[in-house]
Amino acid sequence: MSSPVAAHPSPAAPFQAIFQSFISTADGSAGPARLAALRAVMAERGLAGYIIPRADAHQNEYVPAREERLAWLTGFTGSAGTCVILEDNAALFVDGRYVLQAPAQVDTAAFTVVPLVQMSPEAWLEENLPRGTSLGFDAWRTTLDGRERLSRAVAAVGGILVAVEQDLLDPIWPDRPAAPSAPVRQLDMAFAGADPAAKLAQVQEELAKDREGLDGLLISDPHNTAWLFNVRGADVNHTPLPLAWCLVPAQGRPSLFIDQGKLGGPVRSALAEVADIAPVAALEPTLATYAQGRTVRLDQATAPVHLGSVVERGGGRVSKGADPVTLLKASKNEAEIAGMRSAHVRDGVALARFLHWFAETAPKGGLTEIDAVEALETFRRETGELQDVSFPTISGAGPNGAIVHYRVTQDTNRAIATGELFLIDSGAQYPDGTTDVTRTLAVGTPTAEMRTRYTQVLKGHIAISRAVFPEGTSGSQLDPLARQFLWASGLDFEHGTGHGVGAGLSVHEGPARISKLGYVPLKAGMILSNEPGYYKAGAFGIRIENLVLVEPRKPEGAERPSLGFEVLTLAPYDRTLIDTALLSPEERTFIDFYHRRVLEEIGPRVPPATRAFLEQATAPL
Amino acid sequence: MSSPVAAHPSPAAPFQAIFQSFISTADGSAGPARLAALRAVMAERGLAGYIIPRADAHQNEYVPAREERLAWLTGFTGSAGTCVILEDNAALFVDGRYVLQAPAQVDTAAFTVVPLVQMSPEAWLEENLPRGTSLGFDAWRTTLDGRERLSRAVAAVGGILVAVEQDLLDPIWPDRPAAPSAPVRQLDMAFAGADPAAKLAQVQEELAKDREGLDGLLISDPHNTAWLFNVRGADVNHTPLPLAWCLVPAQGRPSLFIDQGKLGGPVRSALAEVADIAPVAALEPTLATYAQGRTVRLDQATAPVHLGSVVERGGGRVSKGADPVTLLKASKNEAEIAGMRSAHVRDGVALARFLHWFAETAPKGGLTEIDAVEALETFRRETGELQDVSFPTISGAGPNGAIVHYRVTQDTNRAIATGELFLIDSGAQYPDGTTDVTRTLAVGTPTAEMRTRYTQVLKGHIAISRAVFPEGTSGSQLDPLARQFLWASGLDFEHGTGHGVGAGLSVHEGPARISKLGYVPLKAGMILSNEPGYYKAGAFGIRIENLVLVEPRKPEGAERPSLGFEVLTLAPYDRTLIDTALLSPEERTFIDFYHRRVLEEIGPRVPPATRAFLEQATAPL
Repeated sequence: MSSPVAAHPSPAAPFQAIFQSFISTADGSAGPARLAALRAVMAERGLAGYIIPRADAHQNEYVPAREERLAWLTGFTGSAGTCVILEDNAALFVDGRYVLQAPAQVDTAAFTVVPLVQMSPEAWLEENLPRGTSLGFDAWRTTLDGRERLSRAVAAVGGILVAVEQDLLDPIWPDRPAAPSAPVRQLDMAFAGADPAAKLAQVQEELAKDREGLDGLLISDPHNTAWLFNVRGADVNHTPLPLAWCLVPAQGRPSLFIDQGKLGGPVRSALAEVADIAPVAALEPTLATYAQGRTVRLDQATAPVHLGSVVERGGGRVSKGADPVTLLKASKNEAEIAGMRSAHVRDGVALARFLHWFAETAPKGGLTEIDAVEALETFRRETGELQDVSFPTISGAGPNGAIVHYRVTQDTNRAIATGELFLIDSGAQYPDGTTDVTRTLAVGTPTAEMRTRYTQVLKGHIAISRAVFPEGTSGSQLDPLARQFLWASGLDFEHGTGHGVGAGLSVHEGPARISKLGYVPLKAGMILSNEPGYYKAGAFGIRIENLVLVEPRKPEGAERPSLGFEVLTLAPYDRTLIDTALLSPEERTFIDFYHRRVLEEIGPRVPPATRAFLEQATAPL
Repeated sequence: MSSPVAAHPSPAAPFQAIFQSFISTADGSAGPARLAALRAVMAERGLAGYIIPRADAHQNEYVPAREERLAWLTGFTGSAGTCVILEDNAALFVDGRYVLQAPAQVDTAAFTVVPLVQMSPEAWLEENLPRGTSLGFDAWRTTLDGRERLSRAVAAVGGILVAVEQDLLDPIWPDRPAAPSAPVRQLDMAFAGADPAAKLAQVQEELAKDREGLDGLLISDPHNTAWLFNVRGADVNHTPLPLAWCLVPAQGRPSLFIDQGKLGGPVRSALAEVADIAPVAALEPTLATYAQGRTVRLDQATAPVHLGSVVERGGGRVSKGADPVTLLKASKNEAEIAGMRSAHVRDGVALARFLHWFAETAPKGGLTEIDAVEALETFRRETGELQDVSFPTISGAGPNGAIVHYRVTQDTNRAIATGELFLIDSGAQYPDGTTDVTRTLAVGTPTAEMRTRYTQVLKGHIAISRAVFPEGTSGSQLDPLARQFLWASGLDFEHGTGHGVGAGLSVHEGPARISKLGYVPLKAGMILSNEPGYYKAGAFGIRIENLVLVEPRKPEGAERPSLGFEVLTLAPYDRTLIDTALLSPEERTFIDFYHRRVLEEIGPRVPPATRAFLEQATAPL
């Protein structure tokens, strides 16, 4: 921080969240009319059924407003879901996060809400699609794997699966938002660490190594295109992404397909040095021409069915597999690591100010979940570098903390009462990096149960932080280390221990993760979250999350190349929640060492009152 | 023990191993002539290639002498391997255990030894099988999955894959041993715990639940038939198995196909109460007739390709999947558990006598690996209940201990020198149960490195022993707990942490295991080994193994049904190898508690001198 700031914002700069809304956008009242209009379009095309997934053509986590098709049709605003529309019934499939929210948002006379644990869309189709009829699916917003699943279900009832290339909502959605067209900016080489030519060489080397004899790669994941060309944008919320497509031949210049209006002169010139730039409309004809006699890799996680058809109709062969960029991008280079470290120091300053403010304000009573979100975003904005939050902050007091994917709205906003736990999971997008951090805070005196559970979660979190493991070890092998102390008490948590995190890109990035199904070996340079938790339904939630960087380790006498973690996040744990009697000497040392690091890195960067708070918060246990 | 025995055998009863041979059976000199004879048979049948796997028709771990076809042809006596014979070359594929042994046993001018890590038989065929020629495989000794792999390889070179139903070695193997015909005995209900009618009902209930609509099950794994009918035999070494086949319809009486000469009157009468008994020759026609219009489950792990063809030619459908008996058998009932416990007490007596003898004798020098095997088997035989060893004892001194699957012969036999570690991994078959135990013993004063490594392995072994985990947890999730302390020093071991163990059946039993690939959830009643290790090539090997029983646990405040382990094996750890400074208080308590249990259970059952030894060996650390 170059200029000193006060510990808390002045009255002239009140707390405010500008990157997150607390309005309940639940309005399913238009659903029945829109459903009727869609059915008319289906009838014109001879479709007995049609599927609206909550997806855009890139399978993005955050989609542009014009791609909020599921919400427009049904009123359901969750981040995942699928609606299957038949002539006389329609089912909305949602996961465990949304089994309460979905029925509250949609007109349940028009849409039957089906929890996915009860039935999949495919199983439902097998029971409900009339025999021998046609089911349409969106060829742009469905992946190759998704089509295969549908294909089996439709075959089981002797039906016909129809790939629909047009967006059937378009003719019936008069005020549909335009496609986003945020300006594209170049990522400074100081943050990117490698220029597009060098990255292109890496990608082409991977293509050459592939055993399937690849002639080219279609990049459908815009995160991968952003990484390859060192560009960022603002086409979707919370991730600085320009929507684009890219065709990379095994040798020679790639073609970048992007809305030309997004490119200012300098960006355009820089891109033109390494790629042929074309409008998005040129993607199909270019790909069709290119495909003739060639094998083209399509990313199994994101590529639309339609582009597979374009390759095949063009006389090419589709190789369905992983986009090699995903793995290259996951291992951060020195510049990206430096950027992530500096982003975490900056974020640590905002977190320290927030924790100080919270410790002073919350015990007085009256503070709400929304107040906390607004304060934290304000402290982050006051770093002068905040570009966005990396996801909507999860801010849950008492029983709301036990809802793993809780999102506070004006309807659910709860006062943070004395004697309760408060869980806040948040992150920031800065020019140099992305953060994601969770702290659980006691207001007043926590119960013995809260302290025991917090300490068990913390011990799991520390076990991951301290783990050293041979190269080749996957996240699935580390995941149990985070759970063992809860398991010993007959407890567990229902989410993964950690996800990959992008450097100035998505806060949820593949391919590695620390979870039961995380089979990808961890590699040096990967950044993951370490976030075990414990949730007592109706009572309280605990989660403790730091980001960690995978780095080489060489213990004395080591026989195998080994890896370990550097902790990136810098914020104290709530010491009132730690039961030191449950800690091993090594765990206690870890906490004291980490806290000293927090004080050393953050202390000099915060106002004196916050520094005094931090000294107390990070004192040896 | 009803009558007191001396601590060590009298000179009138010298140590002797009768269930294990130390003779090097390496004689590959006949290989080239036998290979030529086989090639002549292949030529008659128009086969350019033929495959000899180290397998019988049941995919048994131990096979009868007449099924040692790979050893007869090549001279290679390892427990796994595959020979691919072409017109002018032949390759013997072996895994890492046998890369040194195989070239020493076979005539390498006739057989090229190929380590499997370098190349699979399928990849080798793609390079070596002449285009468009025919490859024969043994339709009885190849599984459905095995055929699929071959099929892809042969298709890649435009070849023809030929299922050969006859045994091509039969006509050229004049002195081939006869099929085994050991008498079948009934297992006492006191050990079996459930009668065949009740077990049959369980199996048929599983068949009814299967989503594939199964009409029947072919049991190809003779362990499963032995379990179902409560019979034991002696057709192969180390596992009390009668070779047999069984066809279980979804309803009604099963058919048991077995060599009639093995059945005495009472066994026959007992079996006839629940099954139709038929000779093995009746299997094919009976299965063919039965299959008409029916779906028959064939076990993917053991069923021969040929029986799949019989089902299909008979007009039936093959459902390839798991034999449900495998999972039923894995969860032991109360009687089986009681038998396993009593077998382990008895084995503990033999182990205590062995450890006492070793502690007194080894430091004097001159003791060899074979001496130790003979002593241990003798102590076990003197329990009066030993039926067989459950596998050939692994007895490795110094650097031999670092060879994970070392098997001592007169050629390799090594004196156990002072200052060395000695690793002994052994087990017994008793009427009531099966054991498998490894101890690593120091002779003289161990080095600091040996003690550190031993203690790290022990900490992993204890972490498994003490683990509590929710129902649904798989062995793959527990495996890292055993490795974490070695990992921290940049070390690891190259085998799984544990395998399933049968109750009076095979010492290696599926489907659960504690290893990276052990995806089957553990269930109460399963018995597994817990055997982490560390191997310093050329120096020493450490492995510590107990058998553990999965049992329900209910920690105070538990929210989830949980499981933990009861340790079955009763033998002290070598305290001179434990560095107590590296132990947590909980680990120390675990060892003291375990040692007290060993003293309480075994102490009263051994001679006074051994008891005195045991008191010292199990004193609190």
